Amino acid sequence: MSDSKIKTTTEIAELIGGTVRGDAEALVSGVQSLKDAKKEDVSFLGNKKYTEQVPDTAAAAVIVGPDYDVNNSGGATLIVCETPNIAFAKVIEFFAPPPPEYPPMIHPSAVVADSARVGNGVHVGPCAVIEANAEIGDGSKICAGSYIGEYTTVGRGTLIYPNVSIRERCVVGDGVIIHSGTVIGSDGFGFEAGPSGIVKIPQMGIVQLDDGVEIGANCTIDRARFGRTWMKAGVKLDNQVHVAHNVVVGECSMLIGQCGIAGSAEIGRGVIVAAKAGINGHITLGDGARIAGTSGVVKDVPPGGTVVGTPAEPKRDFMARIILPKTVAKLKEQVKLMLERIEELERNSKD
Amino acid sequence: MSDSKIKTTTEIAELIGGTVRGDAEALVSGVQSLKDAKKEDVSFLGNKKYTEQVPDTAAAAVIVGPDYDVNNSGGATLIVCETPNIAFAKVIEFFAPPPPEYPPMIHPSAVVADSARVGNGVHVGPCAVIEANAEIGDGSKICAGSYIGEYTTVGRGTLIYPNVSIRERCVVGDGVIIHSGTVIGSDGFGFEAGPSGIVKIPQMGIVQLDDGVEIGANCTIDRARFGRTWMKAGVKLDNQVHVAHNVVVGECSMLIGQCGIAGSAEIGRGVIVAAKAGINGHITLGDGARIAGTSGVVKDVPPGGTVVGTPAEPKRDFMARIILPKTVAKLKEQVKLMLERIEELERNSKD
Amino acid sequence: MSDSKIKTTTEIAELIGGTVRGDAEALVSGVQSLKDAKKEDVSFLGNKKYTEQVPDTAAAAVIVGPDYDVNNSGGATLIVCETPNIAFAKVIEFFAPPPPEYPPMIHPSAVVADSARVGNGVHVGPCAVIEANAEIGDGSKICAGSYIGEYTTVGRGTLIYPNVSIRERCVVGDGVIIHSGTVIGSDGFGFEAGPSGIVKIPQMGIVQLDDGVEIGANCTIDRARFGRTWMKAGVKLDNQVHVAHNVVVGECSMLIGQCGIAGSAEIGRGVIVAAKAGINGHITLGDGARIAGTSGVVKDVPPGGTVVGTPAEPKRDFMARIILPKTVAKLKEQVKLMLERIEELERNSKD
Repeated sequence: MSDSKIKTTTEIAELIGGTVRGDAEALVSGVQSLKDAKKEDVSFLGNKKYTEQVPDTAAAAVIVGPDYDVNNSGGATLIVCETPNIAFAKVIEFFAPPPPEYPPMIHPSAVVADSARVGNGVHVGPCAVIEANAEIGDGSKICAGSYIGEYTTVGRGTLIYPNVSIRERCVVGDGVIIHSGTVIGSDGFGFEAGPSGIVKIPQMGIVQLDDGVEIGANCTIDRARFGRTWMKAGVKLDNQVHVAHNVVVGECSMLIGQCGIAGSAEIGRGVIVAAKAGINGHITLGDGARIAGTSGVVKDVPPGGTVVGTPAEPKRDFMARIILPKTVAKLKEQVKLMLERIEELERNSKD
Repeated sequence: MSDSKIKTTTEIAELIGGTVRGDAEALVSGVQSLKDAKKEDVSFLGNKKYTEQVPDTAAAAVIVGPDYDVNNSGGATLIVCETPNIAFAKVIEFFAPPPPEYPPMIHPSAVVADSARVGNGVHVGPCAVIEANAEIGDGSKICAGSYIGEYTTVGRGTLIYPNVSIRERCVVGDGVIIHSGTVIGSDGFGFEAGPSGIVKIPQMGIVQLDDGVEIGANCTIDRARFGRTWMKAGVKLDNQVHVAHNVVVGECSMLIGQCGIAGSAEIGRGVIVAAKAGINGHITLGDGARIAGTSGVVKDVPPGGTVVGTPAEPKRDFMARIILPKTVAKLKEQVKLMLERIEELERNSKD
Repeated sequence: MSDSKIKTTTEIAELIGGTVRGDAEALVSGVQSLKDAKKEDVSFLGNKKYTEQVPDTAAAAVIVGPDYDVNNSGGATLIVCETPNIAFAKVIEFFAPPPPEYPPMIHPSAVVADSARVGNGVHVGPCAVIEANAEIGDGSKICAGSYIGEYTTVGRGTLIYPNVSIRERCVVGDGVIIHSGTVIGSDGFGFEAGPSGIVKIPQMGIVQLDDGVEIGANCTIDRARFGRTWMKAGVKLDNQVHVAHNVVVGECSMLIGQCGIAGSAEIGRGVIVAAKAGINGHITLGDGARIAGTSGVVKDVPPGGTVVGTPAEPKRDFMARIILPKTVAKLKEQVKLMLERIEELERNSKD
């Protein structure tokens, strides 16, 4: 489906700044894992766990780090470089089929309001909807079936995949990527018990996504009660992440798959919230904090802090908890032996 | 984008039944949190955690409770009232930009089956689909890209946001709100191991949402194996909640973000299932039960019961478990001291 | 809405290979649970938990197992058979209203690229989009609003419900079912820290779904970094399941609601990952492994292994942890009694 590319191992080594150990003229035309590679592929060793797969791989060439034993190639040509992971990413990019083009056009089936402002070179895909007074910046792509609400602004060079929903008055920056199925600007979950039942609190705020943000598939980011729910520049969300109203996430933080952030939590810069973790509302995670997967965080975490478990605690405390059954078993044994010594003493004292 | 509104602090105080302490003629034109407020905003103190932000806020006015120290205003005009949270909700509503109108019309790009019955004043948005024999009640709004399956009925005054999918034969009441990306009536997860592999069990039931139900974004509510999966009047679901087949949820219960309810569970009235909790199938949560966030509930919870943890247990038991490392450390210390006393006794008995 | 069917209990018994105990000519026209049944319904006892509901049911007939006490029918006709669950599934299927037809046609509002190849008897629903060079096999149904990316192939007899998004170059087999809101082929979550910030790693691989796979509503399956993310034949996913890039799931394994599988995990055949569990990246679950609900699995599980908890461990270890508070309380009591005996000895030794 794309013109296939063929390279020699020498050319690959030049591309990544590496050194060939083996056949410098071997030809490769694709990339694969060590396990799945065929004889026309180049592969890589990026995780020591897979070291034993290198001599067994069918790949023509394998990219390895400087500490790899070059006598253990099993027949493949080795390409030695400093950082095999980053090098391999370059090779992947080289061999990658071109992504879909989403060419500049407004598809005839798209529905664009007269008052919407659409920039130059914009793609509006089939059945996409741009509501009144919305604004789409130059070169952005609004793919098939996506919905952009009234007064919402999308910056330049932003890519919104099919079937995304963005409600009214939200602000999306430049170079943002939003994957399919994601919902931006749905109402925050706000209810108060009133005298005559549950009362819905109006959610009049917005969602703001700054430049370079990427949001995975089937995420939800609720609009603020007032003000804004805010993902600052470079924030990355994996799939199925839920961000509640009025949350602020600092620059370049990452929220991994299926984690959730409750209302008004403040997350610093460079924070990683690992998969399935939950963050309570109205708490703060300091810059650079690390939250382990599946943790339930119920109080502030200081800058640089690492917490784990539910309720989340520092790793040392968590590990003490993990080994507790062994600690108790040992204690039980000690108590049993002490009891024997007490009984011996009691027998003696009666004598 | 909407006519901006300007009010004096006195007018705000009248709106919420409060008393002005400070400049009765100060002008405000918007609402904000204490931290983000500018000089034209009114803010509020709804959570004692933020008390120290009051003297530092740039807001022209702050709504506070009756116990707030009025000498600690830091320059802002205070508006004192009984319940700042509820009062502020009124102020938010006053200043809120009007929501999108979704005017009565069937958009030319919508696909409405001839046999579908559409009431008066209904909005059917761009590229929405209403299948054969479906029925949409007066004043309801079916927004862009949403799908209403055959024989499904939607009541009056119901709002279905863009890109919602409702399969065949479901029943949606009056005044219901369903947020984007939600799927109602997908097949329950039902398989049996048969002699020649896994067999799919037909899911012939429906989903019923009673009046006043609100369902968040990207939720899933599966159709029943037979009979119905049923959200009773006033039930509220946050985002990314999963409700399996044949579950029944009682009036005004709330299911918070990313929680999940397994098949045939019965949930009473006024129950709160907090974020990320999981409820096993075929169990009962009594009226007014409270399930803590991230809990895994494996057995019935009595009416009014509160449980926490996995497997979920009463709070007292959970807390005993939480402090267990400290309890064991103390016990270990005691055992060490006892051992010294035993050894002393042993030395003495040998004398 | 469908021709109603009426059967005698004798006819039902013939359908399922059972024996009538009671009125052999009683008429039934629908199926229901014991609790919700009306006098025209047939019900069943599939779970002993509901035994006491049998004599109280309004159902005309109840399907029970061979060990049920036939004198305890409470007036209903009993139909005795070996496996009431499987028998009832047959009865459900018999009475089920016919599913929607999704007849062969390309709806005029659908957007099908000229270069796409669409087989015989295919349904392409309203506002569905089939991109360039995609291929849809005979008899498959692509429902309203669904998106099929360029070069993606869909096999024969596959059913893709409304509002599904499948990105470019994915491979979907024969007889696959994909429920609404699901996203297939979104980018894997791959970033590397580079010298000038976070760098996105291109995700050039695909997703492959083999024959007979079923994917629930609002799931996400990310495309591989290279190679494929792969669900083998007969794999079943419940709703809101997240599968990260390069994961492989073996034949007939089941991933239950809201569970998540991190990147490059390898899951064997016939594995069950229960609701809300999380599986770490780069680990292996052996054939037939069972992962308890809400577990967090951080290391390999052997074939046939059962693990529970976070971090997940064998059930015996988990149970020891569960009863730990009782073990410690008992130990504490023992220590207290020992201390009294030590003090008694000390008093005696001073005499």
